[in-house]
Amino acid sequence: MLYKRNLQLNKNGELIHLLSTEGLPKSILTQVLDTATNFVSIGDREVKKVPLLRGKSVFNLFFENSTRTRTTFEIAAKRLSADVINLDIAKSSAVKGETLLDTIANLSAMAADLFVVRHSESGAPYLIAQHVAPHVHVINAGDGRHAHPTQGLLDMYTIRHYKKDFSNLTVAIVGDVLHSRVARSDIHALTTLGCPEVRVVGPKTIVPGDMAPMGVRVCHTLEEGIKGADVIIMLRLQNERMSGALLPSSQEFFKSFGLTPEKLQLARPDAIVMHPGPINRGVEIDSAVADGTHSVILPQVTFGIAVRMAAMSIVAGNEA
Amino acid sequence: MLYKRNLQLNKNGELIHLLSTEGLPKSILTQVLDTATNFVSIGDREVKKVPLLRGKSVFNLFFENSTRTRTTFEIAAKRLSADVINLDIAKSSAVKGETLLDTIANLSAMAADLFVVRHSESGAPYLIAQHVAPHVHVINAGDGRHAHPTQGLLDMYTIRHYKKDFSNLTVAIVGDVLHSRVARSDIHALTTLGCPEVRVVGPKTIVPGDMAPMGVRVCHTLEEGIKGADVIIMLRLQNERMSGALLPSSQEFFKSFGLTPEKLQLARPDAIVMHPGPINRGVEIDSAVADGTHSVILPQVTFGIAVRMAAMSIVAGNEA
Amino acid sequence: MLYKRNLQLNKNGELIHLLSTEGLPKSILTQVLDTATNFVSIGDREVKKVPLLRGKSVFNLFFENSTRTRTTFEIAAKRLSADVINLDIAKSSAVKGETLLDTIANLSAMAADLFVVRHSESGAPYLIAQHVAPHVHVINAGDGRHAHPTQGLLDMYTIRHYKKDFSNLTVAIVGDVLHSRVARSDIHALTTLGCPEVRVVGPKTIVPGDMAPMGVRVCHTLEEGIKGADVIIMLRLQNERMSGALLPSSQEFFKSFGLTPEKLQLARPDAIVMHPGPINRGVEIDSAVADGTHSVILPQVTFGIAVRMAAMSIVAGNEA
Repeated sequence: MLYKRNLQLNKNGELIHLLSTEGLPKSILTQVLDTATNFVSIGDREVKKVPLLRGKSVFNLFFENSTRTRTTFEIAAKRLSADVINLDIAKSSAVKGETLLDTIANLSAMAADLFVVRHSESGAPYLIAQHVAPHVHVINAGDGRHAHPTQGLLDMYTIRHYKKDFSNLTVAIVGDVLHSRVARSDIHALTTLGCPEVRVVGPKTIVPGDMAPMGVRVCHTLEEGIKGADVIIMLRLQNERMSGALLPSSQEFFKSFGLTPEKLQLARPDAIVMHPGPINRGVEIDSAVADGTHSVILPQVTFGIAVRMAAMSIVAGNEA
Repeated sequence: MLYKRNLQLNKNGELIHLLSTEGLPKSILTQVLDTATNFVSIGDREVKKVPLLRGKSVFNLFFENSTRTRTTFEIAAKRLSADVINLDIAKSSAVKGETLLDTIANLSAMAADLFVVRHSESGAPYLIAQHVAPHVHVINAGDGRHAHPTQGLLDMYTIRHYKKDFSNLTVAIVGDVLHSRVARSDIHALTTLGCPEVRVVGPKTIVPGDMAPMGVRVCHTLEEGIKGADVIIMLRLQNERMSGALLPSSQEFFKSFGLTPEKLQLARPDAIVMHPGPINRGVEIDSAVADGTHSVILPQVTFGIAVRMAAMSIVAGNEA
Repeated sequence: MLYKRNLQLNKNGELIHLLSTEGLPKSILTQVLDTATNFVSIGDREVKKVPLLRGKSVFNLFFENSTRTRTTFEIAAKRLSADVINLDIAKSSAVKGETLLDTIANLSAMAADLFVVRHSESGAPYLIAQHVAPHVHVINAGDGRHAHPTQGLLDMYTIRHYKKDFSNLTVAIVGDVLHSRVARSDIHALTTLGCPEVRVVGPKTIVPGDMAPMGVRVCHTLEEGIKGADVIIMLRLQNERMSGALLPSSQEFFKSFGLTPEKLQLARPDAIVMHPGPINRGVEIDSAVADGTHSVILPQVTFGIAVRMAAMSIVAGNEA
């Protein structure tokens, strides 16, 4: 924990890499959210650009494909006036046989300023952050099952936008918690920001009982999980998990844990429904809920650009 | 017809989406061509940029691959100073399982300004235009067999450039008319702009007799089709059609409908020869014609950038 | 030779295309290196951009994939403020069936200013340079086994940076010289710049004896090759060559020609070790050498951006 904290922060306690919401103090989380507030309005402007990263080189290093996530970072960087280089390393044969650190050392030598890293291996962005030159910053865009901090932060932004304050909230995180880096990033951020009740909700196979030490309440029925909740975060059910022994079928999952208008009535009347996207209609969420008045799924996307702009501009402004 | 007209135009009759040349009034077509005239000269300048779309986000959404067409839109958008995001959705696994409209809703939430859409399904850009937020504009970059309006407009620009006026022209469109969105877009534009004689030329299998209601003359021999023509538009023969029963072989096709210097003599002495590219030398057109003095195939490409700049800047300047 | 010289230079002897280090006079090589010196410092600036190519369109035409090389040119062009269009033609189906020259003619018609060409066929960039319009410039980013002039020039920059002067140097080029466009580009540049002793080092199968006419000394043992050398350029061993009859195995190759700390002691005490990357650790070079104090492999990468900026800005500033 201390080790990770040090890696993300410089000796003045300023954010230099964004690798995980775990280990970040409340003041840093709040700084990102406050900075993002300023950027949300840029999306409505005639000219949606600010010159904060002009002449900086941002590399999108996607060792695992994700068109959607890469796009959000690309837009965020371009609105900050950075030069963006997309490297779909998953498809590249040029770097085959080269070690991860050699790839990073080479790109650093091209005078990169910021690496946005998506990797299927948990911890890869940490390894990179440990080895980059002092002027280079790393943002984790999702590593294995470990963390997806910008998703966590945009979820916090969304919750704060609609609920103003974390101190009286009940937040339910529903679905495949076991495999979800989003869930983990949300839990750490919610805890740090003072949310008194975080529930993780799903069948025993994918919501293990031993999560209690993380400070969450484990619920194995949707009814228990969302009762009285202010915020419901539905996780995406990965189709590749379906075939395994962990889950019976998407229809059966939907019957027990899919969020329908009827079940949503168990939550507070002003509850908001969130989802990291892309949604599986009829698997984890009913279309009537996804498109309904409680849904804030599309505002999440809009806030996500602003939060990524905030994270990029903050780390790029601090020195190791 | 009325429905489509409304979708492309706002209540003041201004162009907000470019989906088809069908249903657009002559004044709009002329506006695009006149605007393009201003942009043609930019290609010769030292600094080939104007700031009309500065800070706007243009998304190239290619559900069907087309490096060439995407490139022309990318160049056009960059010369207008827009930020361009290329999404090769045909290759992306990230959006699998997500509906087209969910993808669009998500990208719209990222504060997109303009979608350039290529799709194998006819009508997809209409569906998108019906559902985007009021501030978002859609340009059809080719949908199924239906329409390819920027190609149609660049063809009109080319004809007007060389022939000044549409009112006395005979235009022959030769080849696989049945499957050609280019042919359809050209026919609608030529008719609206007052071209008195449009001929469609090809074997019966790919130039159906029932096209007469579109106001065109159907010709089943090249000789009849290009006799006295001022403009000859050769269509690209798709190789994948060859194997079917529609056409015997590319050699036989060339013998009957390939444009050779000899056959070209049947047209007017100052006839121009056009082709949307990429050309199949020796299939639909002889190299001596493609590279000859009548050919305006490369100027079409140059004008195409200017026409796309015109279309983008016009729609982006109007509100729904 | 004379023919190639003419193609690269205009009638005033100025560089208009960069196709090979062969046939370029010392004054031109020196001009590129001197210009690059100015650009090296840009990488350290807060805003890493100069407006020299603002509004120019640079096309990266990669008929052969190379993410790394494309990235270096993309960064170089963006730091010169150019608009960059990446065309992974190797993956594109749109241009299938079209001839290389038709592709080039089409892209030229889009008002391209500069083509950066990588092609598996030796000579392809020459063919292109012969056919482009006078305002278009071509830079060879590697063609077959023939040439890779920007790599050659960045190697010269690196040598000059560390050794100041070529007139007393012994340079050893070690490895798969037979298949290496890097080796060829280095040899021509070193000879022109006045390097008195260039050695090519490797087994007989990949370092043919008939290279002597190029003005190099052929060495078939590493010990002989690097003895007293000031500069050691290790070439990348292409894995696809391994399987053939040319080389026994990567382990055996390493035993004979891999550069280890022990063998490096045969060179001069202040020798520098270079490699075009990506390195195969334990095949052509030992990690202790690659990461050691003699290694200048990462500075090569940094200088490579500056050299490519220099080459691009010089050719774009001259008229055919």
